[in-house]
Amino acid sequence: MADPEIQDPIAELITNYNELNSSVIEELDEEPSALEFMRFVARNTPFVVRGAAADWQATRTWTVDYLKDVLGDEPVNVAVTPRGNADAPTPYTSPDGTTTTLVFAKPHEEDQPFSAFLSHLTSTPQKEVRYAQTQNDNLRHGEYHPLFHHVPPTIPWARLALGQEQPDAVNLWIGNARSVTALHKDNYENVYVQVAGHKHFVLLPPAGGAAAVVNEQPLSAARYVRTHTLEGEEEGLEGGLELVLDDGEEGKGEVVPFAIWDPNRPAENATRYSALAQPMRVTLDPGDMLYLPCMWYHKVSQSCSPEGVCIAVNYWYDMDFAGPLYPLSTFVRSVVNKET
Amino acid sequence: MADPEIQDPIAELITNYNELNSSVIEELDEEPSALEFMRFVARNTPFVVRGAAADWQATRTWTVDYLKDVLGDEPVNVAVTPRGNADAPTPYTSPDGTTTTLVFAKPHEEDQPFSAFLSHLTSTPQKEVRYAQTQNDNLRHGEYHPLFHHVPPTIPWARLALGQEQPDAVNLWIGNARSVTALHKDNYENVYVQVAGHKHFVLLPPAGGAAAVVNEQPLSAARYVRTHTLEGEEEGLEGGLELVLDDGEEGKGEVVPFAIWDPNRPAENATRYSALAQPMRVTLDPGDMLYLPCMWYHKVSQSCSPEGVCIAVNYWYDMDFAGPLYPLSTFVRSVVNKET
Repeated sequence: MADPEIQDPIAELITNYNELNSSVIEELDEEPSALEFMRFVARNTPFVVRGAAADWQATRTWTVDYLKDVLGDEPVNVAVTPRGNADAPTPYTSPDGTTTTLVFAKPHEEDQPFSAFLSHLTSTPQKEVRYAQTQNDNLRHGEYHPLFHHVPPTIPWARLALGQEQPDAVNLWIGNARSVTALHKDNYENVYVQVAGHKHFVLLPPAGGAAAVVNEQPLSAARYVRTHTLEGEEEGLEGGLELVLDDGEEGKGEVVPFAIWDPNRPAENATRYSALAQPMRVTLDPGDMLYLPCMWYHKVSQSCSPEGVCIAVNYWYDMDFAGPLYPLSTFVRSVVNKET
Repeated sequence: MADPEIQDPIAELITNYNELNSSVIEELDEEPSALEFMRFVARNTPFVVRGAAADWQATRTWTVDYLKDVLGDEPVNVAVTPRGNADAPTPYTSPDGTTTTLVFAKPHEEDQPFSAFLSHLTSTPQKEVRYAQTQNDNLRHGEYHPLFHHVPPTIPWARLALGQEQPDAVNLWIGNARSVTALHKDNYENVYVQVAGHKHFVLLPPAGGAAAVVNEQPLSAARYVRTHTLEGEEEGLEGGLELVLDDGEEGKGEVVPFAIWDPNRPAENATRYSALAQPMRVTLDPGDMLYLPCMWYHKVSQSCSPEGVCIAVNYWYDMDFAGPLYPLSTFVRSVVNKET
């Protein structure tokens, strides 16, 4: 055959999808109606609305000082890593120094007084990277609840379109430019709102064969632990971090299937399909709103506000597992895993 | 592994889909809003609304005599077959009688005066089967245009939801219980309305791995031709029908990929996946409306009205090729074709 891709269903899927879909994100002039939004859900296609949240109280008022005033020394959960690599594929060297493998590195997690956390985030130099990234409905029902009335309790057009009276979760994210969220996907419809600083998304569509592109591998799970604590510092918590393999149950280490291809370093850890991918890129500025459809792979990096922070809020709505996307995406993944 | 299907992505797809979706069609109490409809489009799931078209002028007034009054002897295109097998897999015996193979049998097509066509349809005995089944917008812009104002020009909620000012086609179907439409799929969103008689649908979902179930095979195309015409009969057209292989271009016969599995005779022509399918069945009575989502395989048989006819109208709206369904369904088909 003249077209070698015809013989390869996976390559055919990626190129078919790319021919039928733009890799440039759609920008809407204003927030969509419920019906307009439902068309995007049906197509499983992202869009951005610039400035949709510019008038939210959060966007207008959440300075570092203001947040410290509201939350004071209330304890908040903080993910701590040496290089901003929470929940990310990370090289791990065995204690005897003989082997280095890629593992799935979970952060050290600890409660810190909110003011101390924010002070560390905006100080220099920083010996470690801290990120408030609990994705447990922390803004609506968790530690940031005092700020919840500064954002809408739900996104009206998403509520109507998806027929869900409430989002499944409303999350607050506070970090700085040193944290990166590694390429992964969520089984949620996601409305993502930038409050301060900038977020840089790289997106890959599940219906475009992302499962064949991202090079998912079974990684041993590991977690950063503090080896010692430096007493006497302002926040009293900084110290050495060591990556330790999880024991898992019954001594067998936990294994996490995770993407190891990075769309920003496309030549490394590539599959034979990675070069066919056409990642979609979008940067959110303060007040911008992104619809990130369910199951899209996304890598997220950050740039700071002039105050040195990056703050975002996201709304998770339950996805519809009954539609074509979930079973067919699972099928693509199974075919890929069987072939490779 | 305990579950052998885990090793087989295709079997896993079919069972996953069936676990997440009902094989019983949803019945709505009334026509949906545009937003409610869009949710069904997003899920690629059929529904039926009983009696939604009961008050249409078509449903109330289209008797055989009334239709003859309106259309008289105007010529209409009629599909003629010996056994109601227009566009269907059919055994073909070579002229020398030595081999019998399955071919794709296209009907003999001829123009007949509408009154004569209807008289034949309702007479007994019938030597041949006739079906007015041109799917070329025949009700809106074709031979049945004088009847078009008896139906709505579009389905309001479909127009709004899909953002299409007009359907792509509005088709009229007039036949009787002897015609069967073989299992096939269309790349359209379809709103199907029963006017007289009854239609029995058997449906298979594309996202449920239908491509692996229906046993699509490359069939040589053939067409019925009249070998002689019996003059002097009322309609002056009846005569012998012979199945003749298409020449195709440059003498190479045309080949049509077509499903040869029949969900009503599931043991014949089955693939190793056919038994996993859970076909959805629904019968439309006069005034009932069916949303048949794009790319669903459907087999349609008919029962007559007391007058001996079966009449339906359908609205085709363009499907969205950019969404997940088209590229992923194509992928399933490619994987199936590569494996078998």
